[in-house]
This record gives sequence, structure tokens and C-alpha cells, in this order.
Amino acid sequence: MIKIFNTSDSNFSATFMEILNRGKMDIKNVTPIVQNLLDDVIFRGIDALKENIFKFDKWEPRGLDDIRIPLNDLAKAYNQLDDNAKSALHTAYDRIYSFHLKQKPKTWLDFEENGTVLGQKITPVDRAGLYIPGGKAVYPSSLLMNAIPAIVAGVKDIIVCTPTPSNEPNNILLATAYLCGIKEIYKVGGASAIGLMAYGIDGVKKVDVITGPGNIFVATAKKLVFGEVCIDMIAGPSEIGIIADENANPKYIAHDLLSQSEHDEMASSILITTSKELATEVSAHVSMILPSLSRKNIAKESISNRGAIIVAKDIDECIALSNQLAFEHLEILTHNSFELLSRIKHAGAIFLGENTPEPIGDYLAGPNHTLPTGGSAKFFSPLGTEVFMKKSSIISFSKQALDELGEECAILADLEGLDAHKKAILVRKKEI
Amino acid sequence: MIKIFNTSDSNFSATFMEILNRGKMDIKNVTPIVQNLLDDVIFRGIDALKENIFKFDKWEPRGLDDIRIPLNDLAKAYNQLDDNAKSALHTAYDRIYSFHLKQKPKTWLDFEENGTVLGQKITPVDRAGLYIPGGKAVYPSSLLMNAIPAIVAGVKDIIVCTPTPSNEPNNILLATAYLCGIKEIYKVGGASAIGLMAYGIDGVKKVDVITGPGNIFVATAKKLVFGEVCIDMIAGPSEIGIIADENANPKYIAHDLLSQSEHDEMASSILITTSKELATEVSAHVSMILPSLSRKNIAKESISNRGAIIVAKDIDECIALSNQLAFEHLEILTHNSFELLSRIKHAGAIFLGENTPEPIGDYLAGPNHTLPTGGSAKFFSPLGTEVFMKKSSIISFSKQALDELGEECAILADLEGLDAHKKAILVRKKEI
Repeated sequence: MIKIFNTSDSNFSATFMEILNRGKMDIKNVTPIVQNLLDDVIFRGIDALKENIFKFDKWEPRGLDDIRIPLNDLAKAYNQLDDNAKSALHTAYDRIYSFHLKQKPKTWLDFEENGTVLGQKITPVDRAGLYIPGGKAVYPSSLLMNAIPAIVAGVKDIIVCTPTPSNEPNNILLATAYLCGIKEIYKVGGASAIGLMAYGIDGVKKVDVITGPGNIFVATAKKLVFGEVCIDMIAGPSEIGIIADENANPKYIAHDLLSQSEHDEMASSILITTSKELATEVSAHVSMILPSLSRKNIAKESISNRGAIIVAKDIDECIALSNQLAFEHLEILTHNSFELLSRIKHAGAIFLGENTPEPIGDYLAGPNHTLPTGGSAKFFSPLGTEVFMKKSSIISFSKQALDELGEECAILADLEGLDAHKKAILVRKKEI
Repeated sequence: MIKIFNTSDSNFSATFMEILNRGKMDIKNVTPIVQNLLDDVIFRGIDALKENIFKFDKWEPRGLDDIRIPLNDLAKAYNQLDDNAKSALHTAYDRIYSFHLKQKPKTWLDFEENGTVLGQKITPVDRAGLYIPGGKAVYPSSLLMNAIPAIVAGVKDIIVCTPTPSNEPNNILLATAYLCGIKEIYKVGGASAIGLMAYGIDGVKKVDVITGPGNIFVATAKKLVFGEVCIDMIAGPSEIGIIADENANPKYIAHDLLSQSEHDEMASSILITTSKELATEVSAHVSMILPSLSRKNIAKESISNRGAIIVAKDIDECIALSNQLAFEHLEILTHNSFELLSRIKHAGAIFLGENTPEPIGDYLAGPNHTLPTGGSAKFFSPLGTEVFMKKSSIISFSKQALDELGEECAILADLEGLDAHKKAILVRKKEI
């Protein structure tokens, strides 16, 4: 079911190219449709939202009041949660909060002897919009992972948009919103929701930052509004890469590959190993476990079409391939996983050792589960507090500092032919 | 020449709205043209570049060798620099380097008592592309401000694209490239250059990050390739805001406003003051200084059409207006400038006190001069090393940690109906 390749196969480079291109999304093709949906929100406001909710979610809101979820419903949903779920959500909240507090950048100032003060003031944005998918599956963990960095950043206004088919909100999602202290939730999805958040409508102020996962329409809409607002990243289907040597447990690996495959038919699950025996065993376990999964149809399509086991000649080759692929999730299941860490150049999140299955990171290890996909870990980072914050440089020169550096500054202005720049320096040195 | 408004004017809100919208760029209109230029690079490679260089820069390269600047030319240009220019460029380099080293994020690990290890590995991207405008004016400071963060980040491969009309490279730009240790420079500009860097062509590898200023075609191209690569921001015309009380020196302010206006007819220069007298004096100084400027035509058009002096009723109102406008550059020229710092919510760079004219920040104070414009300081940050770096989360659980947290993790997977996620946990707890 899951295919096994060997790096020494004559056609391996074609296979590898296919895996390299796993994340390609056809954004260009859907751009005109998405641009129209965005423009519609700009020009028609609430009427555009009503029409699209009717079209996509099959219910008829009368106005904004119908689209916004009442505060009372959130508390009610939270109170209905059973104790185990409540406790698990709180554990996840606390651990995610604590990790993001540690990675939060802080304002700093530096003083030079001549009286110069330089630094960065780092402050939260005023208002953030979180897109949380709904429909077929609802992921409260996505809400935690998007809301908590904004909360830790210190964002005052956090709003959520989520598609709500048949006007039936998911209770666990509402309960999670209550846990996060979110008060403003709109039942709208897709490009319209991104338009609502990016441009605002009568009664809903525009936001400064939009984050959150979504399908290609949401991803394209986020790209189109970039510049009007900041966005986190453009994410595609989820994926896992596993580097394993002969010491790894094949049953664990099979489960980890399948846990990625069950997300989505387009998900990729790739094992890169030095051991031919392990490859065969993992493949057998995958075939054995699959029929028992509740989402076996999705997992099967994903693992057969977009899963792969690659047998490499040594661990160096495993690492080289992994760095080229820049996986969203990378598990290292070797006898010396920590030692390999220094050689991993590109990956969204790195899971070390056999006690760290990827789902631990999806829910409650602490780091964010919103990660760059499709090789974009070569330049994008996990979602973090910094997306909800921005920096202002701080510069203060003393008279002495200006005396010391003014002349060279004027020379540079001169090199660029910027006369008024030079004069702004000289006037203070009483030289004009 | 520069208009004076009062916040109590009956039509002030219309004026203010115009200033709020100062940064609007019509990216949507140029998108089809720019998309074609990008596609052309993808499909025709070097032929597309040759054709566009001929069209826009009026010379005929025979091939890639003609487009790339020979290494020898860089050293030669550097050696031809006069000593004052050399020394000023070195001072700027050193100060910018030192500031960016201070703001560079660092890898960290955190250990919990139960054996959990969490952290972030922060590493440079492999290859960065810098777009440096050329043509009418050439700005070596832009090269310093884009290259140094990449150098400090640790990027191994840094390439530069710059339009070179008539195939006549600017010597100071080449000298600055030599100073920065940049070895790969291509004489190509506009959307084609962004396409070259984002997608690569035969002989030029694609980059991971593109930064640098440019006109609306460059800005649009950067937006369109976002996702294929990371970009810094989408920047529009430059601008300055100045908050001043009655203690400020009107002559200094007039010079600072004009130093922004001389950049570009579309630049905005805005003074917000509590003092009617200061407003009148600044206006008089602006009219007096302007005719003496070498770029007086540009400055005049900019300051008359997009300059403004706003008289506010008190310092609180000055700050509130400034926070709404979120200036790229903000000077605070009041008796207590440092005390106001805590109340400035949004600004690209904040210049405190009368010895800190904005041009100091353009050249050699240390912080980056690539700053968010048009109000986008509400969510974008100055260019920094982090644009050339990315984070990988690190997660390692011990057996004990998995025992402690596995069950709650499985509960959360269950809430989301992700069976295989749950099983990846349970199999390690020997529960399946």
C-alpha cells in the first residue's frame, strides 16, 4: 500500500521531484474567483456575507446579529463540557501559553557612552482575526493554537470567523473560545470571512493580522489581503517526514505516518530510513493498522498516493533528503536523535525520540501546531507571538553623538544626492 | 506652500481620512501585467530577461554572463572610492552590523523536570535575494540595510538584482557590494528581477527570501511570489510624522519635513503640533528653505500635495492622531520626548529629541531604514535579521512525560475524531 523506494533506483530522482513538489497549490487559478468574493465584501458588506452564507453554509442570516454568536452560548457550551475534556483543554491551554510566553520577543534598549540610545519597542497589534475551519471536521486545537499566541502577545481585540453549516455551531469550539476569553465570533467562512476581517464592514472593525488554516480559497484570500493586513503564512496540506535507523520501532512509525494521512487525502507521509528491514516492517504495519482506523478511506488514499518509504544508503543521505524536503513535521527516530539535531537545517517542528509522537505536538506539548508546509519551512516559521506583534525602532542621539557621526552621515547623503537629508544634519551642527 | 489644518476645523475629518489613506497602492490594476512578466521568466528564462532589459534598460545583453557583474569590477569600484566615502560607508556598516547583531533571535532550549525538552532552533535561510533600485537615483544605503541583516543572520548565499540603465552600473553601489562581500549581482530590475530570484533560471538558483524596496511593479511582484519565497513587506512611498510642542526648533522641523519630501513626489511629510506659532514658523521656514534644495521640484510637489501641518488641541490629541496614522518615521520633538515613548503604539522608527534628525536613521544610527509605510506599522516591523531566518520548534518527550500527558492528549484527539492520532499515543503506552 505504501510504496517503498530506494535512493539507488534509476528513476529515484523523478520520484523525489514529485515529493519535492508535494505542496504546489494552484492559487493562480482560483485568484479571480477569490478576488471577486473579497471585492464583494468591500462593496456590499453585510449583503455579500448573507448571500455567501446562504450559498455555502445553507442557512439564511437576517443580519449581523444572526451571524455573530451570542456571548451566552459560549459559557453554556463550556459548562456542558465533560470534566475530562475540560481538564485536557486546560492542560493544553496552560502548556501552549507557557511555551509562547517563553518565545515572546521583548522590548529592549541599549545605551552607548556618547549618549546614543538604540532599541526596539515590541508591542501587540490592536486587533487580530483568527480563521478556524468548520464543516466536516472541527478542530478546537486550531483555535487554541491561533488564539493563545495572540493572547500572550497582548492583543486586546481577538475575533474569530468560522464557517457554520446549517447554522449549527460546534459546542467544543464554542467552549474552547470561552476558555480563551474570545467574545467576538462570526459564523462565516471562506474568502468572505477573510474579506470581513481584512476590510471590516459596518459594525465589524477591520483587523491588523489574520492567521489560521483553511482550504485553497482561504489561503488565496489571505495572500490577496497581505499588505492590507499581516498574515501568518500560506499553508497547504499537512505532512510528516520521519528519519529512522534500524533501532526504531516499526509499529510506532506506521502509526505516526497514518496519523498524518488521516488528516486529508492530500497529506504526505514520508519515512526515510537506512534500514531495508525497517522499511518492509513499517509497510506491513501500515497495511495492518489501516483497516482499523475510523478515517480509513481518507488515510488509505493519502498513504497510497502521497505516502512513501525511502531507503537511503546512510544517515547522511537521510538528513540531506530531509533538508531538501523541509518537512512540516519531522520525527527523528534514531539511537542518537539529539546528536542529529544540529544537522537538521529545515523543518517546521522537530520531534526527537520514540516518546515524542507527532500528535503530542498537535495538542499539548506547547509549541504551535501551525507550521510551514510543502517545503516552505526553508523560509517560514511556526506561528508565534511575533506574528501578533510588531517592532518600532527607537533612536535617540545626544548632541555628542551627532557631533561624532553627523559629518559621515552628511557624506553618505551626498553620495546619494539627497541634499535635504544632508541639510537636516548640518542645520543642527550650525553649519548652515 | 505646506498647508496648515486645525483639528477643530469643520472639515478636518475629511483631511484626516486623506492622510490615513496616503499609502493606498493600486496593486490590483497592475497585477495582470506583473503576473505576465513573472510567468515569462518561468517559461522563457534568460530570453525573458534579455528582452526586458532591452525594453526597460535600453541595452542588449547576449546572455547571463553579460547580465552578471564580474567580480573584478566590484573590487575596482571599491578601490576607486575616495577615503571619506570609504570611511563613512565603513562606519555605517559597523553600526548597522552591531545593531542587527543585538536584535538577532537566538536558538533556545528549555528543560522540564519530567524530561521534556522544548525549544526553538533558529537558523538562516540558505539563499537570499536583495532588490536594489537603480536608474534615476542609486542608494548604496539600501544595499547596506538589506545585506547586513542577511549577513548577520548567517545567510551563505546573498544575491542582488538592480536595474542598470544603458548597462552603466553605479560605482558606489558596486563598491558597497564589495564592502558587504556580495559576489553575485545581476543587472536586471522590475518584476523580471523578482521572477528571477523567486523561481530561478538556468544558471541562477532560486532564493528563499526576497527583500528590498521598489516601485509598484516590484511591490506587486513581491506580493505575487509570496509563498513561493518569503518577503519582507510591501512598501509604498516614504513618509515622516513629527510630533512637536512649543519648545521645538521650527527650522529643524522644516528641514526634517523636506528631507522626506525630496525622496519622491508621493512622499508624505506631516507635522502634528500643539503650537499654532510653531505651525506658522515651520511653514515659513519650509517656503524659505525649499528653493535652495537641489531636488526642489520633487520636494515642492510632495510638500504641497502631500505635506500637512496639523494643529492639535493638546499633546494627547497629537499622540492619538499619530497612533492612528502609524507613521513610517516618527520624530518626537517635545520637552519630554522619552516620556511620550510609552504612549506611542504604532510607528516604524521613533526618533527622540532634537539631535536625532531622521536622516541619521537612514544612514548610520544602526537600526534598519527599511520600514513599514502607509499605516502598515500597525502590523509590519522594520526589516531585521529574522526575515532571513526561520524557526524550527524542538519537542522531545521522555517516557515519564508521555505517561503524564499521553492520556489527555488522546482525549483531545478523540474530541476531534482523529483516531490515528489517538492510536499513535496509545501504542506507546502499550494500550493498543
